[in-house]
Amino acid sequence: MFDRRGVMGAAIAGFLAASPLAAAVRFDRRNPGFDIVDDGGGVVPIFVDAADLPGVRRAAGDLAADIGRVTGTDARILASAAELAGRVIIVGSLGHSPLLDGLVARGKLDVRDVRGKWEAYTLQTIADPMPGVREALVIAGSDKRGAIYGIYDLSRTIGVSPWYWWADVPVVRRKQVRVSYGRYVQGSPAVKYRGIFLNNEAPALSGWTKAKFGGMNAAFYTRLFELLLRLRANYLWPAMWDNAFAEDDPANPRMAEDYGIVMGSSHHEPMMRAHKEWTDRKDRLGNGQWNYVTNRDAIRQFFREGIERNRDNEVLVTIGMRGDGDVAMSGTGSLASDVKLLETIIADQRGIIAQGMGRPAETVPQVWVLFTEVYKYYDAGLKVPDDVTLMFADDNVGNLRRLPLKSELGRKGGFGIYFHMDMNGGPFSYKWVNTNPLPKIWEQMNLANRYGANEIWIANVGDLKPLELPIEFFLAMAWNPVEVGKDRIAGWTRDWAAEQFGPAHSAEIADLLARYAKYNAWRKPELLSPGTYSLEHYREAERACEAWDILERRADALAEKLAPDQQAAYFQLVLYPVRACAALTNLYVAAARNARFGRQGRASTNAEATRVRELFERGHRLRDAYNKDLSGGKWDHLMDQPYIGYFDWFPPVNDIMPAVTSLDLAADAGFGVAVDGDAKGWPGFWLSPRLPTLDSLSRNRTYIEVFPRGPRPLDVQLVADRPWVRIERGPAFSVSPEDRRYWIDIDWSAAPVGASEAVITVSGMDQEPVKVTLPVLRATAQQMREARGAWGTLTGAFAIPASAASRSVPARGVRWEAIPDYGRVDTAMSVFPVDAEPFSDPTSSPRLDYELFLAQPGTYHVDLVTGATLEAYPGRKHAVAVGIDDEAPVVQAVFTPENGPRQDFLGSGHAETAGANARTMRFEIPVARAGRHLLRVSMIDPMVVLQTIIVSRDPLPESYFGPPPLGPR
Amino acid sequence: MFDRRGVMGAAIAGFLAASPLAAAVRFDRRNPGFDIVDDGGGVVPIFVDAADLPGVRRAAGDLAADIGRVTGTDARILASAAELAGRVIIVGSLGHSPLLDGLVARGKLDVRDVRGKWEAYTLQTIADPMPGVREALVIAGSDKRGAIYGIYDLSRTIGVSPWYWWADVPVVRRKQVRVSYGRYVQGSPAVKYRGIFLNNEAPALSGWTKAKFGGMNAAFYTRLFELLLRLRANYLWPAMWDNAFAEDDPANPRMAEDYGIVMGSSHHEPMMRAHKEWTDRKDRLGNGQWNYVTNRDAIRQFFREGIERNRDNEVLVTIGMRGDGDVAMSGTGSLASDVKLLETIIADQRGIIAQGMGRPAETVPQVWVLFTEVYKYYDAGLKVPDDVTLMFADDNVGNLRRLPLKSELGRKGGFGIYFHMDMNGGPFSYKWVNTNPLPKIWEQMNLANRYGANEIWIANVGDLKPLELPIEFFLAMAWNPVEVGKDRIAGWTRDWAAEQFGPAHSAEIADLLARYAKYNAWRKPELLSPGTYSLEHYREAERACEAWDILERRADALAEKLAPDQQAAYFQLVLYPVRACAALTNLYVAAARNARFGRQGRASTNAEATRVRELFERGHRLRDAYNKDLSGGKWDHLMDQPYIGYFDWFPPVNDIMPAVTSLDLAADAGFGVAVDGDAKGWPGFWLSPRLPTLDSLSRNRTYIEVFPRGPRPLDVQLVADRPWVRIERGPAFSVSPEDRRYWIDIDWSAAPVGASEAVITVSGMDQEPVKVTLPVLRATAQQMREARGAWGTLTGAFAIPASAASRSVPARGVRWEAIPDYGRVDTAMSVFPVDAEPFSDPTSSPRLDYELFLAQPGTYHVDLVTGATLEAYPGRKHAVAVGIDDEAPVVQAVFTPENGPRQDFLGSGHAETAGANARTMRFEIPVARAGRHLLRVSMIDPMVVLQTIIVSRDPLPESYFGPPPLGPR
Repeated sequence: MFDRRGVMGAAIAGFLAASPLAAAVRFDRRNPGFDIVDDGGGVVPIFVDAADLPGVRRAAGDLAADIGRVTGTDARILASAAELAGRVIIVGSLGHSPLLDGLVARGKLDVRDVRGKWEAYTLQTIADPMPGVREALVIAGSDKRGAIYGIYDLSRTIGVSPWYWWADVPVVRRKQVRVSYGRYVQGSPAVKYRGIFLNNEAPALSGWTKAKFGGMNAAFYTRLFELLLRLRANYLWPAMWDNAFAEDDPANPRMAEDYGIVMGSSHHEPMMRAHKEWTDRKDRLGNGQWNYVTNRDAIRQFFREGIERNRDNEVLVTIGMRGDGDVAMSGTGSLASDVKLLETIIADQRGIIAQGMGRPAETVPQVWVLFTEVYKYYDAGLKVPDDVTLMFADDNVGNLRRLPLKSELGRKGGFGIYFHMDMNGGPFSYKWVNTNPLPKIWEQMNLANRYGANEIWIANVGDLKPLELPIEFFLAMAWNPVEVGKDRIAGWTRDWAAEQFGPAHSAEIADLLARYAKYNAWRKPELLSPGTYSLEHYREAERACEAWDILERRADALAEKLAPDQQAAYFQLVLYPVRACAALTNLYVAAARNARFGRQGRASTNAEATRVRELFERGHRLRDAYNKDLSGGKWDHLMDQPYIGYFDWFPPVNDIMPAVTSLDLAADAGFGVAVDGDAKGWPGFWLSPRLPTLDSLSRNRTYIEVFPRGPRPLDVQLVADRPWVRIERGPAFSVSPEDRRYWIDIDWSAAPVGASEAVITVSGMDQEPVKVTLPVLRATAQQMREARGAWGTLTGAFAIPASAASRSVPARGVRWEAIPDYGRVDTAMSVFPVDAEPFSDPTSSPRLDYELFLAQPGTYHVDLVTGATLEAYPGRKHAVAVGIDDEAPVVQAVFTPENGPRQDFLGSGHAETAGANARTMRFEIPVARAGRHLLRVSMIDPMVVLQTIIVSRDPLPESYFGPPPLGPR
Repeated sequence: MFDRRGVMGAAIAGFLAASPLAAAVRFDRRNPGFDIVDDGGGVVPIFVDAADLPGVRRAAGDLAADIGRVTGTDARILASAAELAGRVIIVGSLGHSPLLDGLVARGKLDVRDVRGKWEAYTLQTIADPMPGVREALVIAGSDKRGAIYGIYDLSRTIGVSPWYWWADVPVVRRKQVRVSYGRYVQGSPAVKYRGIFLNNEAPALSGWTKAKFGGMNAAFYTRLFELLLRLRANYLWPAMWDNAFAEDDPANPRMAEDYGIVMGSSHHEPMMRAHKEWTDRKDRLGNGQWNYVTNRDAIRQFFREGIERNRDNEVLVTIGMRGDGDVAMSGTGSLASDVKLLETIIADQRGIIAQGMGRPAETVPQVWVLFTEVYKYYDAGLKVPDDVTLMFADDNVGNLRRLPLKSELGRKGGFGIYFHMDMNGGPFSYKWVNTNPLPKIWEQMNLANRYGANEIWIANVGDLKPLELPIEFFLAMAWNPVEVGKDRIAGWTRDWAAEQFGPAHSAEIADLLARYAKYNAWRKPELLSPGTYSLEHYREAERACEAWDILERRADALAEKLAPDQQAAYFQLVLYPVRACAALTNLYVAAARNARFGRQGRASTNAEATRVRELFERGHRLRDAYNKDLSGGKWDHLMDQPYIGYFDWFPPVNDIMPAVTSLDLAADAGFGVAVDGDAKGWPGFWLSPRLPTLDSLSRNRTYIEVFPRGPRPLDVQLVADRPWVRIERGPAFSVSPEDRRYWIDIDWSAAPVGASEAVITVSGMDQEPVKVTLPVLRATAQQMREARGAWGTLTGAFAIPASAASRSVPARGVRWEAIPDYGRVDTAMSVFPVDAEPFSDPTSSPRLDYELFLAQPGTYHVDLVTGATLEAYPGRKHAVAVGIDDEAPVVQAVFTPENGPRQDFLGSGHAETAGANARTMRFEIPVARAGRHLLRVSMIDPMVVLQTIIVSRDPLPESYFGPPPLGPR
């Protein structure tokens, strides 16, 4: 894709993939090259042809300013060729810059591998390009955006982040900036139209734009256009909640055209018109109904105006029609008649486009978006003209619902993807901070690319901030998905962190960024509740809090190391979300403890209520710091989105504190006891407490918590009736230091082989002692031999990381490979290449083998915890096979039988799967004998992503993640 | 049953039914009679034969003291016949009092209709009974308890309530006490053994007895025996939670015998031994297992000791065997072998009884209790000897599970009932205050009596207090169920109130007592939660609060009118439960508002949280007043039972406050809108609000609530777009005066006929107005004509009180009759006589006809809201029929088909039905034409109690009671 000639010096740390300049720019003079700063500290001027396209001329001005940001001195823009002299930067687009075209004609500038391409450019140093000019640094775009991207690539490479304004990323001042002599070529992007959709923009983005710009006017949009171009995006669906791009500020469309942004309108706003434009005037439009059957003429006129006013603009027209607002169209009686109506509408729209644009419809790019209910019309056979791009919408949560069939490929308009990083609607809303881990975006968009849906990629980015990282990643993949491979995601993130903060802490910052999104994708903040993580089982809530607390401590520690001018960027990109999300998880878990402790009669119940109130307040102090203090209030309102207390798909009006209880304590109360694995408190329940079984293979430990039930200080003794029970006191998972935890484990050398029971007696404070039973299993010598090197426990319930296969067996060039950092785990496994043909025979398909030890024969549940991916290739099953030893593997598919879960968000199971970002497929596997076994997971369909395998015989206790090592470490 | 001779003067107000003395005692001398107080203010002495039974002699002492309580001077007890002179009271039991027997022999005392009877007595004034004695008042018992009951009846009639000590009921001092000359006879009771079971006694009764008596010793039990005898009870199952009657104090059994109480042991403690006696020594008893298969000899020995130590006592021995503690027996493999084992156990037990008592087993009263799982053994054919009483346990919530079949009657041991007024266990616990309305007790125990289960009645009364009223009612019914008829319940309650507080306020106190229990039976306090009553529909939560608030105001007002010495009794019997229950319902509803308001974004959310905290505290202040202040702390600990925050069937350790949320309010927030019938708040939801339909037949009204969402004061206008919409401002159902309600109704004279819609716009505070749609239906002239005098609405959903039939058609002497004050309604309807044979043909069975107006044809749901009664007569269906006009009625039975709800508390539907104290039977009735119809409810089974009929076409909104007039007025 790119080609370099000349000397490539050592690069500064931190360049994003796919920039040909990455290694060419040095901030010293050790290699020969073109100096942007001359010996006297002056900077070379920039020439752009007066005849060149406005977008190129405007971007040249940005380059001049960017050079100033780096060097302290803005570059001069030369107004005419007559001013050219000495050393100069020349920028332009081929065919629009007589000077550049002259250089080409004179053989000074080589554009053979660029000319005629879409959005390509070459950057080339030329000695003696013309009389009086000693050397030139030329950026020649194949077209307008080719030139613009070349200009911004140079800006970025010399140290101006695309986010310099949008995230207050400081620019490092340089005395020397040299571009190594040579020729650099940037070819065309993989995806032709790459864009974002500002959506769900109230209260945050709308409040901010109103306060800062007076509305969503050109002052705001030109800031956005510049950002998009710096990110090599070219396409925009503007904000449309109570906004109308073309009417909010008539300069908006004109400025888009001037900047070089291709405008569109959202999936449900056809013909370049905002829905608000309809609602604002519908009383004057026929009968006021958004109904093509009853109000056709008015709607046609409405469409016509949308096209005619864009006659001179580069647009990508959304066609088709949905209901009034972002809802389904009212039916006409049957699916067949609905399809017929839609075909008529599209034919009419194309007539209007041809007439309004004054050229054949097929020369005007168009897109028809298959969103939610729209799929059914397409599935029912609706035909759209070949030049229209078919855009497949995801499930609103970043899981693709549809990929092009191989048989569908080759259509002129190709295919696109409408992807969500933010949502207001079903199956649930998520509007606050970033919850989109890059490995998940990669896994799905890699499918899109490999299956040929790469004409348009557009992402719903909500308020834009604070989705800086996933937006750039999405656009970088759209430009060059091959460069950003699955094993490069962490590296790409480090490069990105280095670009914003310099190389010194880039690895740590990248990890903070990756983890905060990963933890948020365990369960989106909006879906968290006190009940999410289990307090009883696996210390799950505790481990979630620990993970967040560690992340917060690391983020806090790093803040101390950064320079003052980096603090604002660091706060908005890293510190705010890490702190606020850590507080949120702690908030819900404290609320869960408050409720649980109340039922256990813990005196500390009331302290947990106080903790909830404090954490609720902490969230608001952090929000206020973002809105009011950050960069002098520059970002006020961008954190106005309530995010605490969601109770339905739509956001609450205010943050709602999790409800907290308090207890009426008795002055003379004694102690209470709670045990690992049980929600109850003793005394208080008639059956006595029983701990989970400790077993010598898993060497797990367990615990008892003892707590005061009143104001008297705790004064208890724990005594076990067996000498091999070890008891060690530690802190309870409680805000109160009065609550105690006693860790229980076993001296396995002394415990009897086989099953036994110990009783631990908690006594003191003049009350009836509480006796806790501890079941214990010690392996026999034979069991120990058989279990060596295998996964397994004596109780028969355990989890295996998908990446822990002892063998991966490929077949026909297809194999299971790791996707690092995917989902709930460190490493997930999926099949590559992702567009491999499915296998029907699991005995000869690519396979993963896991070593198992099963202490008992019987029927086991083998639960494959997969990603939330959908059956996106019609006609194929989303299937996988599981087998034991040489038994015939069991093949199962997610979305069969017919009464199984439906995969769109209208299906009841989908909200759950999408919310958990994981799906569990249960296999029933009979095992005839105890001992060593081989568990085999075999590919059927290529799109299954395997996170973990949970093996169990008895019902598993209820928890969010299941048994560790699944879930937070 | 009783017979009076001589002159009966005007009675003092307030005598309980079935006392022959009721009208005979006067506190003046207007009628000729026997003066207990003589002219000088002295009182007549009491003679009891030294040879008489100890219980009679002891009771005579109580009479002497009671005379002192009334007159200020205790009567003297004459030690020997030699002291007899002048005027005297003579008490004794026939056959044990030579003096009495002599009077009989000499023809002075007529005992023909008493002698040989069970627990009967005659009270007779005799002139010149013997030399030197001018006149005597003689109480002659047919047996020991006959004499004792006669003595206590006299005590009670002269003004000493049975509750004088147990509820601090003051005794009115009298200068004159005269018994009209005559002969009064009290026959035998209807139920031979009438008793209570002290159960679930921690923390309240156990805490109180420990503090007051040092444990459940004879000091405590003799207080209880005295109360039981004053209430004409004779049977007791002693407390057994960590208590062993015979071992806690060895004097306990002896004192029971001395007092005249027949001791038993609970349903799961056979052979007169407490379960605690087993657990205390089981390590020394064979293998320690409570298992007749594996530990037979030890268990037999354990049984033997229980019988032998009671050789000289009057006992009623529980036989059979359940599991270790109050749980099911472990099975032996099959039901048949379990039955065989139980038959063996019972045979062995009878052998032990015969040997231990030294007389044939059939001469020792025995009972086998069919509790919970025990039914299945009986149903499987287990045979018990004919002299053993079969006792049927209810469902733990006061609904009989089984009545004797007519074919079973005639067995020598007869049948008994084990009834619950208090429960710790499934389906839910209720241990706090009285939740047992008398009409419900009456309805069920009337079945027991009419079907012949009247050998033993025993009620589980928990801690005894505060169940004073239902305990006495249960025992009064047991004595004479005919006297306490369904139309006498309110009168009986008034009499009871008069006995405790005098006649002046007895009607009001009786109504307070009846209503607080009735309201508690809507849903027991322990089952209340914030979600119980609907905030959205029918103003249900609001009406519940209003009902309690009115009751509390009445109770408070009455307290002011009572004398200082009545305050203690009034507080414990009336004021405490009314206040505490009113606070509790208000507490949960405030918590519901807090949660709801939070989601609506109401600023008043935080004030509701404060209200919850206040009401939680109020509960504790009231509790402390009962425990600490009442009667100088006499009743300390009796209100120790936590009752707030139940989350499972077992009680919480402490009262747990309903959790409350708070909001993070925005300083510049404006107003929000909520509407009748919807939980949401606006702005905040994308669809606009819609009110319930107003219709001209029901003339219902509706409302909009408007509230601040921040600190700014509310400044809004409501404007309707139709002139016939009337809007009137009133207070919101909110603790905050800032929240407003606007009542909406219609000027029907101006509204258009048919369906129309109005829009009410709420505007102000510089925010987008909220538009609320109001659907309106006005009847046509024809509809109005047709609807006149009928039940019906234009929307097709309405409720009809069961008592509102236009016609009741009897058949074969069987008819639907009213049960006043039953359940959720003022008057329920059931079939009488209750032991009528079922009808199979609903077209000729007793019927209720209701006039209906249905505005639309279609299929209607006719929901019969019945009592929670069970199918207690095996072989019969719990069925009823519903028909429309002359169409064939639809017959439905509750517990069919087979997959329908199970009636025991192991069935999933039972907890719900029992908790609601109501069951809904849905009939689907097709209606061919709009207009006037006759709805016919026809008897099939006699035991169905009909509360209300709900008619609907569309799904009804979710609520606890359904549409008014059901639920609180």
